[in-house]
Amino acid sequence: MGPGPINADPRVLRAMSAQLVGQYDPAMTAYMNETMALYRQVFKTANEQTLLIDGTSRAGIEAAIVSLVAPGDRVLVPIFGRFGHLLREIAERAGAEVHVIEREWGTVFTEAEIATALETVKPKLLAVVHGDTSTTVAQPLEGLGELCATHGVLLYTDVTASLAGNPFDTDALGLDAVTAGLQKCLGGPSGSAPATFSPRAVEVIKSRKSIEAGIAGSADEIHATRIRSNYLDLAMIFDYWGEKRLNHHTEATTMLYGARECARILVEEGLDAAIERHRLHGAAMLAGVQGLGLEVFGDPAVKMNNVVAVRIPEGVTGDAVRGEMLEDFGIEIGTSFGPLHGKVWRIGTMGYNARKDAVLTTLASLEQVLRRHGAPVTAGGGVGAAYDLYADQGAGAL
Amino acid sequence: MGPGPINADPRVLRAMSAQLVGQYDPAMTAYMNETMALYRQVFKTANEQTLLIDGTSRAGIEAAIVSLVAPGDRVLVPIFGRFGHLLREIAERAGAEVHVIEREWGTVFTEAEIATALETVKPKLLAVVHGDTSTTVAQPLEGLGELCATHGVLLYTDVTASLAGNPFDTDALGLDAVTAGLQKCLGGPSGSAPATFSPRAVEVIKSRKSIEAGIAGSADEIHATRIRSNYLDLAMIFDYWGEKRLNHHTEATTMLYGARECARILVEEGLDAAIERHRLHGAAMLAGVQGLGLEVFGDPAVKMNNVVAVRIPEGVTGDAVRGEMLEDFGIEIGTSFGPLHGKVWRIGTMGYNARKDAVLTTLASLEQVLRRHGAPVTAGGGVGAAYDLYADQGAGAL
Repeated sequence: MGPGPINADPRVLRAMSAQLVGQYDPAMTAYMNETMALYRQVFKTANEQTLLIDGTSRAGIEAAIVSLVAPGDRVLVPIFGRFGHLLREIAERAGAEVHVIEREWGTVFTEAEIATALETVKPKLLAVVHGDTSTTVAQPLEGLGELCATHGVLLYTDVTASLAGNPFDTDALGLDAVTAGLQKCLGGPSGSAPATFSPRAVEVIKSRKSIEAGIAGSADEIHATRIRSNYLDLAMIFDYWGEKRLNHHTEATTMLYGARECARILVEEGLDAAIERHRLHGAAMLAGVQGLGLEVFGDPAVKMNNVVAVRIPEGVTGDAVRGEMLEDFGIEIGTSFGPLHGKVWRIGTMGYNARKDAVLTTLASLEQVLRRHGAPVTAGGGVGAAYDLYADQGAGAL
Repeated sequence: MGPGPINADPRVLRAMSAQLVGQYDPAMTAYMNETMALYRQVFKTANEQTLLIDGTSRAGIEAAIVSLVAPGDRVLVPIFGRFGHLLREIAERAGAEVHVIEREWGTVFTEAEIATALETVKPKLLAVVHGDTSTTVAQPLEGLGELCATHGVLLYTDVTASLAGNPFDTDALGLDAVTAGLQKCLGGPSGSAPATFSPRAVEVIKSRKSIEAGIAGSADEIHATRIRSNYLDLAMIFDYWGEKRLNHHTEATTMLYGARECARILVEEGLDAAIERHRLHGAAMLAGVQGLGLEVFGDPAVKMNNVVAVRIPEGVTGDAVRGEMLEDFGIEIGTSFGPLHGKVWRIGTMGYNARKDAVLTTLASLEQVLRRHGAPVTAGGGVGAAYDLYADQGAGAL
């Protein structure tokens, strides 16, 4: 019940125990095509280039940035949590001239704040995390697509923490690049990064490929614009997933099976139903921790459905509570990073764990552990508040 | 029965269907430590920094090169097949000044040839593929460690195609960096890259990290030496796998389960026994294809145990034979790349597929398909020659 990775859906684990097939076996290439089609539904996009990057969600982020951004390009990164700092660092390593705006953790930017920064910086790329798990809040993306289109800026977001648990629509938001991971609301293991790229992003990426092929006038020019990574070179990865099937890496077969099954489960449930499930169980967990008498961190107006940050009560050692929850009750909850380290616990309700029994056992166990640590808790207050919320809002839910 | 990926060992698939645990769950960090210890045995090394890179074998290669080589550093790459070209390209993208020596595909370099190039180029890094699956031969590495030590050169090799199927000893060979993959003789899926780094390599990598932390005098100096990738930054990956457990990526749990099980199986069998198994079944396959009357490509003195390249007979369409083998007999064999594309088939006997029944069914099926394609084949010649070899050399084998 941490902020991810989480328990995988048993169907995903079964899919991952299937025997391998060869890299160009028609069965395998058909799975690749199916996976592209499934993730178009998950991302809500018509983008042809919707595929998997073979690595953790961080590999997806680096693939997007290193393929879109040439050394010297300006990148704007609004930072409101740990993962904004990661986007900044990856863009810096790609040689970009990075400009940041920062917001206190637990809050998000207004559209006007981002608009002002766009006008000042005039970046090639606006790179912003959607849901930053470190703070549990999500940056509203509405309006940014129009802003970026007006200024001729590419718009990239990482939705690892939010996808499938919160409303999100790649095409309606006007996004050019989106990356994700399996280990949150998608209910799979870390190690595969679904991603999608708009035709405009593909054009930018492919233009850097053509230079690689020897069209550039000088060695300096090649050096200046060539994609700096081979493994994460999206132009080559597009040609591997596309009709050409040009050999690049050897696709991680088992991770593909897992990523495909995550999307199949989600599409079967229905994306809207899955998001509503995350909303319901997230709300129950929120009501529950408040019912125990605990305080919540972060702007509630922009809190993600699938994770809540709970302030650690005065006098309680956060890690000791986490240790007992894990050792004695078999339930993992998380801490956070940077300014929030040791200040909050993060409790997730995501993917396969966005379930009533998971919420209630977590609240029941947390009450017991907190009591033993001398924290003032309302007996039955957590489970009771969650029950009440389910009675009000989720009569028909699991 | 292609050149990899191959059928995974069923034990590996079962291990990969286990439920996930949290990233810092003591069970998970214990698995990480166990995996390090197991791969020290597989690589035959005492290197502390023996771990997994979360990506395919190509991610391992790029992690090694981008972390060892700063822009402007000289790198020497002896090329004798496709994957030498890959090392060159990755080093170029890392900003290195790359020098190559080339050999006809199917042959390897003499130690003297490499020594001469080392003296001329004076590189920081000698990067050489061990077994190049594209040609089926392996570059002998004996003597290169001493040469590199004399010249103060770092020695890196990729053993994706050869590890666990051919004799290999990281420490005895004096190697500074070694990378691999699971999808060949280790009997697992692509998607995790075991790797090991000598104390000397670790020192070079860590020195680039200390500059990142703000010790450098100027922005130019940072730019010049900072590791260009975050995802593949070994200095950070060492700190994640080490005692500090500094958060970097979220370890790909299921791939770790798989990589760990591959090594457990290998250590249980015994590394020498596994190599002998690959030698025996590789020899049987070689005798078999020759017994069918087919010609073999590549210098037999340096052929890897686990794969053989067979010249496609005159008048036979290579891809049609491969198609029938796959569609009608359920057996995959490979083609090759570049100058060998359409000229040879590559047949593997690796990992779980290095078995007598796999060898005999492949030879029996290939005879039938070749006959239907009008190729002159010796009836029973393939299976007969393999049986003879087993009788001579492998009475006690599976």
